[in-house]
Amino acid sequence: MDLNQKMKYMKMAINLAKKGINKTGSNPIVGAIIVKNKKIIGKGFHSDFGGDHAEIVAIKDAESRKKSVKGSTLFVTLEPCCHTNKKTPPCVNTIISKGIEQVYFLEYDINPNVNGNGIKKLKSNKIKVSQITLKNKLKEINRGFESIKINNRPFVTLKICSSLDSKIYSDQISNNSIGDKVQREHANNLRQNYDAILVGVNTIIKDNPKLNYRGKNNKVKQPTPIIMDSNLRIPLESKVLKNKLQKPIIFCKFSVSDRKIKTYESNKIIVIKLKKISPKNILKQLLGLNFQRVLVEGGGTVFSSFLKENVWDEMLIYYSKIFIGKSGIGLSDKMEQLNKIKGKEIDKIEKIGNSILVRIN
Amino acid sequence: MDLNQKMKYMKMAINLAKKGINKTGSNPIVGAIIVKNKKIIGKGFHSDFGGDHAEIVAIKDAESRKKSVKGSTLFVTLEPCCHTNKKTPPCVNTIISKGIEQVYFLEYDINPNVNGNGIKKLKSNKIKVSQITLKNKLKEINRGFESIKINNRPFVTLKICSSLDSKIYSDQISNNSIGDKVQREHANNLRQNYDAILVGVNTIIKDNPKLNYRGKNNKVKQPTPIIMDSNLRIPLESKVLKNKLQKPIIFCKFSVSDRKIKTYESNKIIVIKLKKISPKNILKQLLGLNFQRVLVEGGGTVFSSFLKENVWDEMLIYYSKIFIGKSGIGLSDKMEQLNKIKGKEIDKIEKIGNSILVRIN
Repeated sequence: MDLNQKMKYMKMAINLAKKGINKTGSNPIVGAIIVKNKKIIGKGFHSDFGGDHAEIVAIKDAESRKKSVKGSTLFVTLEPCCHTNKKTPPCVNTIISKGIEQVYFLEYDINPNVNGNGIKKLKSNKIKVSQITLKNKLKEINRGFESIKINNRPFVTLKICSSLDSKIYSDQISNNSIGDKVQREHANNLRQNYDAILVGVNTIIKDNPKLNYRGKNNKVKQPTPIIMDSNLRIPLESKVLKNKLQKPIIFCKFSVSDRKIKTYESNKIIVIKLKKISPKNILKQLLGLNFQRVLVEGGGTVFSSFLKENVWDEMLIYYSKIFIGKSGIGLSDKMEQLNKIKGKEIDKIEKIGNSILVRIN
Repeated sequence: MDLNQKMKYMKMAINLAKKGINKTGSNPIVGAIIVKNKKIIGKGFHSDFGGDHAEIVAIKDAESRKKSVKGSTLFVTLEPCCHTNKKTPPCVNTIISKGIEQVYFLEYDINPNVNGNGIKKLKSNKIKVSQITLKNKLKEINRGFESIKINNRPFVTLKICSSLDSKIYSDQISNNSIGDKVQREHANNLRQNYDAILVGVNTIIKDNPKLNYRGKNNKVKQPTPIIMDSNLRIPLESKVLKNKLQKPIIFCKFSVSDRKIKTYESNKIIVIKLKKISPKNILKQLLGLNFQRVLVEGGGTVFSSFLKENVWDEMLIYYSKIFIGKSGIGLSDKMEQLNKIKGKEIDKIEKIGNSILVRIN
């Protein structure tokens, strides 16, 4: 098989993997392709936390159509697992026992229980293994999984839509639509890559957003709205609480009365009490709840608190072609101190409609 | 002569023209090359208001070395002039009388006294004339001349250096250096293309800038500092008032006492009284004083007043990778109303060091 052919199969595996976005809980996004006699005989991706890994899905896919995987080649986007303290048996054992002849993988698993050991075990069982180097967007998408393993918290993107003078709200603009249609669509599209969308209660009260993905991709699993609401002030009639596809989760303080919480719970809304409503505390909860990528959409107070606690990985700011002036609410009105966002760089600038999108990470 | 050769000569004429930046008062920037028997025999550019035009300089240059321009080809960046109500005689007459055979020009003169009439007169005298179409930066540099002819005021660029949260000043940053070295050099380099740098007195008091060009181009004519200072509060010891290469001009209100003004004038500083210190009034004065390109460098009050009166052509905002927070002075703290900057677009975005430069025009 020549290199071009190998790259083609690996790209197919990457595209398969992406189907798992927002469905894998704290697990990585993985895709697999099985090739035999120059034909694809099996395909698979990891599609739910605790479910079969991509390699196993692909093997079962082949076998369901009476194709034997003996002597075949496996293309998989992540090093196959070899550890046992988890929900599913190690994939390397199945690969070995099924007689797969060759494995091409894209990335090493950063999980210290695997990280190279999966490859070693395959090799020691006489399976040919090679890594394929390919610039791929999967790496970007798997930052959630990496963050869990490395930082012990979900991956956090801070997103802000502002004017050229960094105002994020003005009561002089209807629907608070600071950006234009193109910018709003772009910002909404981001949501398909996150399993949680976090906002402060003031954003709910001022903008009344639905916090759902409204793009063209109809296979997206809707992200879960997460609301920071210390004193449980969110109006029961808020659009986000009517969201039927994903039940929102509200975080409030211990001091909120149980009676008040019950009025929410009787509307099937999840309310979680914490001693202190802070980014770190909430991220710890979200990790426990198996979220891997959180998109923080404001407002200014929430944005500032994530910056202050330095628990974020990426920042996206849209500057739209308008000056709002002194009457607007500023992006940093709640920011007490200078922040040079050390260790992070301006990574990308892009024109989106009549706005500029700045990415820092 | 083939097209490539023609383009080459025209590009040389453009580069020559640029030497005239900041030296031509309200006149356009123009360069000229004379070619005969495949050799350049004369070069010229317009180098001072009221002085010889580029074509004449090039003819004299050839003749000073005993070269006759009879039968030669002239490359000139602007349509030669044909009108008589001005300091110098019409260039077309000289071109005709000297026996130049062919003329290539880059742009029509937008001055209604010329605009096509120069070309007509040359053609009616049997001189071959063709326009060369070439994407060129001269057009950008001649926006000063165009603004004078079209808008009856100098060309105005608003420049602002801010943080990501649109703060333009913080007493927590030493020397108010919001940007890094690369950004500051880039911003300073802009000054070489302007004959006037305008700021409000608060910028002088807070930053104490020199307002001079400090780049590598040692042929630059330093821009003139212009200070909006209604009540003449500028400290006599300000660095900008010590500028020896270009005397600053201060605009203050009628109500300022003559005695106070004398203390400045005795230090050889020009003070001009106006009924009202407003962008429009000052631009009218600057037009009368023969300025063609004004770079407005802030601060927020001045920036907002130019926006409000809508007397500007281009805006440059640097957003540097820092959040200053609530204690800083905001870009739009003095802006009373929304401004959608209609009719202007985001034209260019660029990364400059650790900053983003946004250009709107």
